[in-house]
Amino acid sequence: MEAKGGYWGRILRVNLTTKDVRVEPLPEYFPRKYLGGVGFGTRVLYDEVPAGADPLGEENKMIITPGLFVGTGIGTGSKTAFNFKSPLTGGYGRAMSGAKMGEELKKAGYDMLIIEGRSEEPVLLVIEDDDVRIVPADGYWGLTTGEARAKAKGEYPGFATAFIGPAGENLNLIAMIDTDERQAGRGGPGAVLGSKKLKGILVRGSKKVPIANPEKLRELIKEWALVFKNHPATKADMEYGSGEFLDWMNRERGTFPVRNWQMGFFKKAYERAKKEGREHIELDPYFWAPRYRVGRRPCPLCNKPCSQYIKVESKKWGTFMTDGPEYETLYSFGGVIEVDDFETVAYLNYLADQLGLDTISAGVTIAWAMEAYERGLLTKEDTDGLELTFGNGDAAVEALKKMAYREGNLGKLLADGVKRASERLGRGSEKFALHVKGMEPPAYDVRGIKGMALAFAVNVRGADHLTSGAYGTELVGKWWKFEGVDRTKGENKGFEIAFHENLMAIYDATGTCKFSRHMYYLEGFPPLVEAVTGMNIGEAELMVIGERIMNVARAFNVREGFTRKDDNLPYRIMWEPIPEGPSKGLHVPPWELDRMLDEYYQARGWSRDGIPTKAKLVALDLPDIAEDIGAGI
Amino acid sequence: MEAKGGYWGRILRVNLTTKDVRVEPLPEYFPRKYLGGVGFGTRVLYDEVPAGADPLGEENKMIITPGLFVGTGIGTGSKTAFNFKSPLTGGYGRAMSGAKMGEELKKAGYDMLIIEGRSEEPVLLVIEDDDVRIVPADGYWGLTTGEARAKAKGEYPGFATAFIGPAGENLNLIAMIDTDERQAGRGGPGAVLGSKKLKGILVRGSKKVPIANPEKLRELIKEWALVFKNHPATKADMEYGSGEFLDWMNRERGTFPVRNWQMGFFKKAYERAKKEGREHIELDPYFWAPRYRVGRRPCPLCNKPCSQYIKVESKKWGTFMTDGPEYETLYSFGGVIEVDDFETVAYLNYLADQLGLDTISAGVTIAWAMEAYERGLLTKEDTDGLELTFGNGDAAVEALKKMAYREGNLGKLLADGVKRASERLGRGSEKFALHVKGMEPPAYDVRGIKGMALAFAVNVRGADHLTSGAYGTELVGKWWKFEGVDRTKGENKGFEIAFHENLMAIYDATGTCKFSRHMYYLEGFPPLVEAVTGMNIGEAELMVIGERIMNVARAFNVREGFTRKDDNLPYRIMWEPIPEGPSKGLHVPPWELDRMLDEYYQARGWSRDGIPTKAKLVALDLPDIAEDIGAGI
Repeated sequence: MEAKGGYWGRILRVNLTTKDVRVEPLPEYFPRKYLGGVGFGTRVLYDEVPAGADPLGEENKMIITPGLFVGTGIGTGSKTAFNFKSPLTGGYGRAMSGAKMGEELKKAGYDMLIIEGRSEEPVLLVIEDDDVRIVPADGYWGLTTGEARAKAKGEYPGFATAFIGPAGENLNLIAMIDTDERQAGRGGPGAVLGSKKLKGILVRGSKKVPIANPEKLRELIKEWALVFKNHPATKADMEYGSGEFLDWMNRERGTFPVRNWQMGFFKKAYERAKKEGREHIELDPYFWAPRYRVGRRPCPLCNKPCSQYIKVESKKWGTFMTDGPEYETLYSFGGVIEVDDFETVAYLNYLADQLGLDTISAGVTIAWAMEAYERGLLTKEDTDGLELTFGNGDAAVEALKKMAYREGNLGKLLADGVKRASERLGRGSEKFALHVKGMEPPAYDVRGIKGMALAFAVNVRGADHLTSGAYGTELVGKWWKFEGVDRTKGENKGFEIAFHENLMAIYDATGTCKFSRHMYYLEGFPPLVEAVTGMNIGEAELMVIGERIMNVARAFNVREGFTRKDDNLPYRIMWEPIPEGPSKGLHVPPWELDRMLDEYYQARGWSRDGIPTKAKLVALDLPDIAEDIGAGI
Repeated sequence: MEAKGGYWGRILRVNLTTKDVRVEPLPEYFPRKYLGGVGFGTRVLYDEVPAGADPLGEENKMIITPGLFVGTGIGTGSKTAFNFKSPLTGGYGRAMSGAKMGEELKKAGYDMLIIEGRSEEPVLLVIEDDDVRIVPADGYWGLTTGEARAKAKGEYPGFATAFIGPAGENLNLIAMIDTDERQAGRGGPGAVLGSKKLKGILVRGSKKVPIANPEKLRELIKEWALVFKNHPATKADMEYGSGEFLDWMNRERGTFPVRNWQMGFFKKAYERAKKEGREHIELDPYFWAPRYRVGRRPCPLCNKPCSQYIKVESKKWGTFMTDGPEYETLYSFGGVIEVDDFETVAYLNYLADQLGLDTISAGVTIAWAMEAYERGLLTKEDTDGLELTFGNGDAAVEALKKMAYREGNLGKLLADGVKRASERLGRGSEKFALHVKGMEPPAYDVRGIKGMALAFAVNVRGADHLTSGAYGTELVGKWWKFEGVDRTKGENKGFEIAFHENLMAIYDATGTCKFSRHMYYLEGFPPLVEAVTGMNIGEAELMVIGERIMNVARAFNVREGFTRKDDNLPYRIMWEPIPEGPSKGLHVPPWELDRMLDEYYQARGWSRDGIPTKAKLVALDLPDIAEDIGAGI
């Protein structure tokens, strides 16, 4: 298609095997049917990556799709989707990042970048408007993300970047992609680039994204800026970042997973804080943000920036600067490994970013290893001599480095996440390996957040918090039009979770940050979409687009052989109740999960085996996918 | 709005109190949001008939909405919706009819006719293009429908008609409206007209319905004519009408309700046929259609006409001509009262049409009375001396006449349907009063068709077969994209029924006969809608429109106080298994219904109490209704 409001109508396709670079037209029907961002990426993934493709082989692709709002100036519209077949789960892979390079890609005149094939030698992909080059990654391969970025800053000034670290190079299945200190973390996108020997992508664009109604858009942006400015969440986010509610999660809800999910709140940390006369535990941003913050490095165009850029001058770890740990990382390098020392948590965060590891997956994997070690299932030989006990931050740091480099017995064991590690070890360690479909869970103890347990189970990419974003609704008991939500009961959850997923797909398609779902909700989108694209798309049609995207993603998994059996929960979540605290006694037994799955499939119009029905797919204007994988009922 | 493809943009509003007649513009957004027909009618009903309005009072309205395809020449596009608050159920009322008067209304230049207020004296409404008159019904009041039609033929030649019979005049809650030998039967529309003292509506139009793309439409009509011609169902319908599958329902499925639902097949009739050496029972069209058919009187523009116009020269009932009994009437004046004599069934059918009674409701009410009589709960005094036993067709004829005129003890008892009758009698007779929300069920023994049991229970207008049309899918086990449907198990039904309802709403909005759902399915509509209206509405958007209509209808009921408790089934269906035959042992116990209700509400995005959630309503572009009645979750 030709360029028009919101779209260039151009796909950049780069083949690393043949070095072929070409610009292709965006299919004419893509905008109205898939909107953009993850919508485009999911459909292309379905169409171009065949069933059974080796995620680390030549057939897999990395499809990079900046959201529709990226580069338009719309507040928080900064998210770019990395779409790929996940080497971690073997299914649909998506990782979102507030990536400057996505914005530059848009400015360079592309709606989408498809990277296919694999290079023999390490390369960089350098894009400057129409000038697209695949160049040797001499001097880059082997560098950390930070080193690579620093080097690129000199050699490619003004370019936005995406780099993998050593973990990606080493095909670590939990490796991420760093995009200028924002991470596309989950599902192993770093390994996919590593398998293609693509160390980094550098992009600079000089064009202005076409806007259908620039005047209207300016007005709307101004109006929304005011809404954001006056919203109480903005102040909280700016002062304390995404970890602002950590204390509430611990003490009010008891759903902050600690000690590899043996506990639902960080008891030891609170005991220590009390002893030391502190109000806040060290993980709590109320403790660390005022002490360590030296600035902010927000995502592009954020008007409720949660970034807490910190400088740590540590006796043990030296001086380092990093974006302060997100809520999830305060869990994965804090609570779940029972480390209560902020500087160590921050250092682990820094290290993971440098080495190119997803913080959630890495931390949960280490937590599993700690439990295995404490249970005597791992010996000192297995840990290369590390005293890998809960709370031992020093050991965690060593373990993390080993993981990134597949170094020693421990590195080899842990490098590919907790599912592989527990399968390698066996001996019952699978029972405390926390993952769904191979992906390690984020910081929500879903035994006490049952709708979120369902969301984990059915999630197309494994245990994540972002595909549904329903944790907030569940924990507060209400959000937007939802009220009376009871997190303690595993019923009446199917529609709630399906709806949240469909709506969040719109956030991902537009590239809007999910932290602004308390401002834009659903109603915010139609005027913005119309100003950008000229398309008049009401709430109902938007929700259909969201549902369509979710069904295409599901269809990708179905084609790979995923069924109801894969919509599962870890043993611990099903069988071991939260032992104490506000959510004491809660767990999600299989029969409760089964009931919720039935509900969810009914809400989705999928079969009892979790396959989208032909009827639902046709009703989503996806007759071809109905033919491919549709179920009768 | 101004006239454009498919729409005149004109509403005719007639107030019988003030005699005010005015033409109003159709709201600009109506076509895209509600399509037409029942879509328009349901929304206007919601907007204009307030909660608590007396269905037989001045506040109720009769909103007559020809389907979008009516008058366009599209095959089977003949259905006009009568929308009203039902005096039978106290909730949403809709009755569809293949009414010539709907077509004339369209030709007269109106998308919709709203009749409001009530006249002091009996009147007729006479519409001839822009000439609209309310005239005294002198000489009409008191006539049967056939007499009124004959009189009108002389006085208003060339006009299409709608008349109520004595039952409507007498505010009989199961009274229908006859539209030139097609009946808008269910829910008491005749009583609504009766309460307004409106005996009849006469319409003649001289205009051509505007078509966006006449050439394309002609092509499509030609293509579809061929499809219909070659479809096996067309031949079956033309030879035997809607009762074609009666034998299959009896002998293969055992789900033909007999003897007030005491049995699932017509055992006695088959025994008699065997004795008399007949292959077919007398009710079976294979028996009577070849013997009695003298012609066809199809709905306007039908290309698979099921009409079997018959002439009966009966010793007992004299000579009469009528449209041969539909499948439903073969049950309501046959099986369910255990009458196996075709001429009597046909005569009851003829009588009900003349008197203005809905055949299904009337028959089921008589069946209840027969059971009550046989159980000794009704005495000869109660029956005015009638020997009201099962199989006694003579008594049924007398009972029917009494009902229409509220004559004698029996007439007064039965006049308003089975719910009122059983409430009046009490003494446990409620347990064998077959109805949902007050409406008597059609000829599907849903104990053996469990998805259809759910459809009965949740149906916005009570126990009908047309709102979901799912009986076919359930009984055959597959239809369109649905496969593997198991009628014997009460699970996995929520999405199936919700989907069928949404799709059937499209049939009603376009005015397409549901007997053509085996031809048009869903995919047939977008090209037809585009040719007629110029609007490009894909499958997904159509389904959203269908869902929207269903939610507005449900909201109407919710506003009237309906909740989950009203989505119920008769005692017999829940507690008394089918005693013999192919469906022996099946019933729908409350816990099974409960499970299906949970599923259905999840599939619909409604609360556990059956209230549409605010989220779902907003996602259907119905934020105002979300405010009015929406639930939190």
